[in-house]
Amino acid sequence: MNYQSSNHLPDKITLGEYLLHRLKQLNVNTLFGLPGEFNMPLLDKISHIKDMKWVGNTNELNAAYAADGYSRLKRMACLMTTFGVGELSVLGGIAGSFAEHVGLIHVVGMPPTSVRTKQLLVHHTLGNRDYNVFYRMANDISCYSTLIEDKEFCYRDVDKCIEMAYLNQRPTYLGVPVNFVNILVDSAKLNKPLKLKNSKRNMTLEDEISNSILKKLYATENPVIIVDGCIIRHGLTEETEKFIKLTNFPTYVTPMGKGAVDETLPNFNGVFIGSLSSPSVREVVDFADFVIVFGCLSSNFSTSSFHLNYKAKNKVLIFDNYVKIKNAIFPDIYMEYIITRLNTTIDVTKVKYNQKNLQDTINLPKYDVDKDKLLKQEWVWNELSHWFKPGDIIITEIGTSSFGINRTKFPKHTQSISQSLWGASGYSIGSCLGVCKAMNELKVQNPELPHNRVILFVGDGSFQIAMQEISTIIRLNLTPYIFLLNNQGFSVDRFLHHRSNASYYDIQSWHYLNIFSVFGAVEYETRKVVTFGDLKEMVNDEAFAVGDKIRMMEIMLPTREVPKALLEKWIREKQQDDKISESPFSILTNDSEYNNWTDDGPTPKRIKTNSVTSV
Amino acid sequence: MNYQSSNHLPDKITLGEYLLHRLKQLNVNTLFGLPGEFNMPLLDKISHIKDMKWVGNTNELNAAYAADGYSRLKRMACLMTTFGVGELSVLGGIAGSFAEHVGLIHVVGMPPTSVRTKQLLVHHTLGNRDYNVFYRMANDISCYSTLIEDKEFCYRDVDKCIEMAYLNQRPTYLGVPVNFVNILVDSAKLNKPLKLKNSKRNMTLEDEISNSILKKLYATENPVIIVDGCIIRHGLTEETEKFIKLTNFPTYVTPMGKGAVDETLPNFNGVFIGSLSSPSVREVVDFADFVIVFGCLSSNFSTSSFHLNYKAKNKVLIFDNYVKIKNAIFPDIYMEYIITRLNTTIDVTKVKYNQKNLQDTINLPKYDVDKDKLLKQEWVWNELSHWFKPGDIIITEIGTSSFGINRTKFPKHTQSISQSLWGASGYSIGSCLGVCKAMNELKVQNPELPHNRVILFVGDGSFQIAMQEISTIIRLNLTPYIFLLNNQGFSVDRFLHHRSNASYYDIQSWHYLNIFSVFGAVEYETRKVVTFGDLKEMVNDEAFAVGDKIRMMEIMLPTREVPKALLEKWIREKQQDDKISESPFSILTNDSEYNNWTDDGPTPKRIKTNSVTSV
Repeated sequence: MNYQSSNHLPDKITLGEYLLHRLKQLNVNTLFGLPGEFNMPLLDKISHIKDMKWVGNTNELNAAYAADGYSRLKRMACLMTTFGVGELSVLGGIAGSFAEHVGLIHVVGMPPTSVRTKQLLVHHTLGNRDYNVFYRMANDISCYSTLIEDKEFCYRDVDKCIEMAYLNQRPTYLGVPVNFVNILVDSAKLNKPLKLKNSKRNMTLEDEISNSILKKLYATENPVIIVDGCIIRHGLTEETEKFIKLTNFPTYVTPMGKGAVDETLPNFNGVFIGSLSSPSVREVVDFADFVIVFGCLSSNFSTSSFHLNYKAKNKVLIFDNYVKIKNAIFPDIYMEYIITRLNTTIDVTKVKYNQKNLQDTINLPKYDVDKDKLLKQEWVWNELSHWFKPGDIIITEIGTSSFGINRTKFPKHTQSISQSLWGASGYSIGSCLGVCKAMNELKVQNPELPHNRVILFVGDGSFQIAMQEISTIIRLNLTPYIFLLNNQGFSVDRFLHHRSNASYYDIQSWHYLNIFSVFGAVEYETRKVVTFGDLKEMVNDEAFAVGDKIRMMEIMLPTREVPKALLEKWIREKQQDDKISESPFSILTNDSEYNNWTDDGPTPKRIKTNSVTSV
Repeated sequence: MNYQSSNHLPDKITLGEYLLHRLKQLNVNTLFGLPGEFNMPLLDKISHIKDMKWVGNTNELNAAYAADGYSRLKRMACLMTTFGVGELSVLGGIAGSFAEHVGLIHVVGMPPTSVRTKQLLVHHTLGNRDYNVFYRMANDISCYSTLIEDKEFCYRDVDKCIEMAYLNQRPTYLGVPVNFVNILVDSAKLNKPLKLKNSKRNMTLEDEISNSILKKLYATENPVIIVDGCIIRHGLTEETEKFIKLTNFPTYVTPMGKGAVDETLPNFNGVFIGSLSSPSVREVVDFADFVIVFGCLSSNFSTSSFHLNYKAKNKVLIFDNYVKIKNAIFPDIYMEYIITRLNTTIDVTKVKYNQKNLQDTINLPKYDVDKDKLLKQEWVWNELSHWFKPGDIIITEIGTSSFGINRTKFPKHTQSISQSLWGASGYSIGSCLGVCKAMNELKVQNPELPHNRVILFVGDGSFQIAMQEISTIIRLNLTPYIFLLNNQGFSVDRFLHHRSNASYYDIQSWHYLNIFSVFGAVEYETRKVVTFGDLKEMVNDEAFAVGDKIRMMEIMLPTREVPKALLEKWIREKQQDDKISESPFSILTNDSEYNNWTDDGPTPKRIKTNSVTSV
């Protein structure tokens, strides 16, 4: 039965409804955003669509993050804002989705066409009669953008925007003037499936590339597989796992790829973070003669500490829509086809590599510390690593927690969400809302799924940026764990930038655990975790492990407590810094320092400078 | 003594310091923003400048609003953000400053020039090597924007950005790559004053225009003066008051102009809000044969309800940099010169108009209601109007309070701050922070100033968008009054858009008065005002009237309680709606309806539609 019949649709439906049905076909059942004058007519349609729900967010930027989080689980999301005041506030979030390959459609309710063509002055404009300015601004951070202008073909704009977002896993922008919301469209158009596969294939070239990769692969003696974020984004984790199991090569994930690989596999060997990697990881990767990276995201996290400086002679980087072998780039080659072809054509008997016993790079000792001792980062991550359960979804904010999480070992089917490349502080709370909604929907559709608990790690500085979205999480009765790492300000920045005393990293001290009550939560749990004893009590509490209510745990960390990897890096850099001139003008702000930067480049040196007077 | 000597500057200072000194020369002593990797070197300079302070905000959008509020008192402000993640989050705020003529410089710390020219991949980028994308996006909402690229003339970029922001009272954008922060500049350059006057004058044309205006003015029998927001923004309130006193014409302010005119003057006669004006205001303005508008801002607030449809034959609109007389536009004529010329050349003996006794348009009856009665909007605004004191600064959020405030009568020297044209919900809290800081600084510089209390009115919906900035207000020991108008959601929108049951206007109910405690406030006062008795007790409490600590008053209003003007408009529209077809497709979303819109156009009709299902 076709979509029209199975959904009992009349022959004609409104364009607004058409848009929502198309989203529903892609498994999008929740919409994020805020109401505004020009998107109301569209919001009024939501109640016409079965199983379609509106989540009103507390502010636009959080709504963008929520849509982003939702899409990281479901590969598509929809964000609805209103012209001008609404849409501009999401740009930071959309840029993050663009940078990190997250597919979503941003639908903007606009003034009617006649107002625009006549260039009338209405509010929420710049007062200069320029009605396209916001659309232009969105253009640069969207993979496709359009303003609906044609009554006959407007449904095609809808299709195109959704298809492009899904195919490229990037944001698209759809401007819908209010006068188009009720334009009638043949509902039979919904029977034609959306185009969700890349059709422009060059199969001869795919063959050639695949054979070239396999030839190198057969010859390698010290190979390494690295799995990056695009594999998750484009839904290719299963296909990639096949390859990992076929070859048995030592396998690593990047921070953005964490969760893409079953970490209980014998050849899984940790997280590769460039120079921030643990020594045992660096040793294997640095001595590899063949490195293949699946789902490459161009990324140079944290002042080039994380770079793709594989010393291997043979490097194969598989991006979403191109492949790079050594220095040669092959454009318009799609990841999904290449991986499938590798899996189907590989002859494992030709592989020269002998499986080695890998050194355990993930060292998670069980500590036995006096229970009154104040916490250390390492104890927290180790204990929580043992506390994680299969199916957990773990969200980490950029900062302390995004470093800490890479030292943990994930059980099977654990997913990780973190905005490592774009790196906007405040991302994780809105994202947590979207992830919780998506997870609940996936569970309803498939009760067998191991999806289980949503666990958020967020620092106090980032928490303050966006905390009101917890109110929405409470309103929707969602039940995430919120681990608030309280180290009194932006600690990672102090360390990364050697501004140990800079008062501009200080923030106001809050009574975080009272926030649930202020936001009207009824059933919840809060804990303050100060000592090792508190930590042990928490992880050993069986009732605590059941994700049945919203929880906030304030983990009290000393201000200078940062994850081990960061600390090691800092000490290393400090030793180098001490050798060179400490002229206050020579570092960071000196052009010549940055002249040394390259894509594979060295870590720039930093020095301590004076602190600033803050009010 | 020149600036260099009086500030004991060495011959060479860094560009970072140069920028801060230039800001100091314009009386900017506080900088707003958040720290980030690429603006740190600049932030490190702040401690080098005497009396210059950094306010770290809780998030970027709030920082933009804080800078905007600061500038509305001091005519200049500075916002500092970091490349990409930081700067994109302020765009909504900057667009508001652009639309409403608020002068500020947005300084963005950028990656070093070499990284940009080599197009390296670093984080906080889109991963596409496009380093100018954010600059391009900012271009459209800045009156001037530049990236520093030249070592020799970089100080000129600084000067130009500050001058343009001040002269035009619009935002400018200055991109400062980190490698330029420590470039040395001759400090003697600071001795040359910034160019803060429009020098391109056409005095012959100014004469001609002025004479033409005066000729009409002498002949008028029913004249009206309207003062709009640009008069405040360009610091011309005193000059305008001269004109008002010289002519004695009936004088009105627009919502954006409220506070520009001494409301105790006998010829001050209320607020003109187009069709939302009180009948007695409409009567005078509609029958005027001569209308002169000072400091015109192109504005059409709330679906054309507020429009410039003066029926007068002779309309004179004085914009910041052009004049419109009837249908003729005279470009490049500056407001300040025209007003001064009118004041100096007017011959009051020739004025034909006889001063009339104006009907009191601001009707503020003293109610005597049973003290157990639940509150009504009208009682609240009337009582508070009597509670206002000379020198108060009153900030109103778009929504219920921005309508309500127009029914109050201001004492002398009262200032009003509201974002009426751009109309972004959530603006007022950040703005309040900036206003408090600016007021404190003005008080220190001139203890005689009547500046006194900062009073904020904000609805619960808007409060939730941006409330964390109250934490910064607490951290800085500022002492505003925060009147939280709790009507359980976006009530104004329900009325304006006739969606009385739309659940997308619902918001989570919070325990607002506990927020101070969560944010770590020590000395504060909170009140819940539910009945008329509570209201009277509050306004009669002498201790309450002293602005010595931060206070929050939760004013409980019934959900459907909206200001009288809005209610009247709604009833009027409803009566018209009932006469016409109520087909769900004929209204709001129908092109032909909007075809009737013009700049002076009629209010579009709206109908009630179905509510949406919300989760």
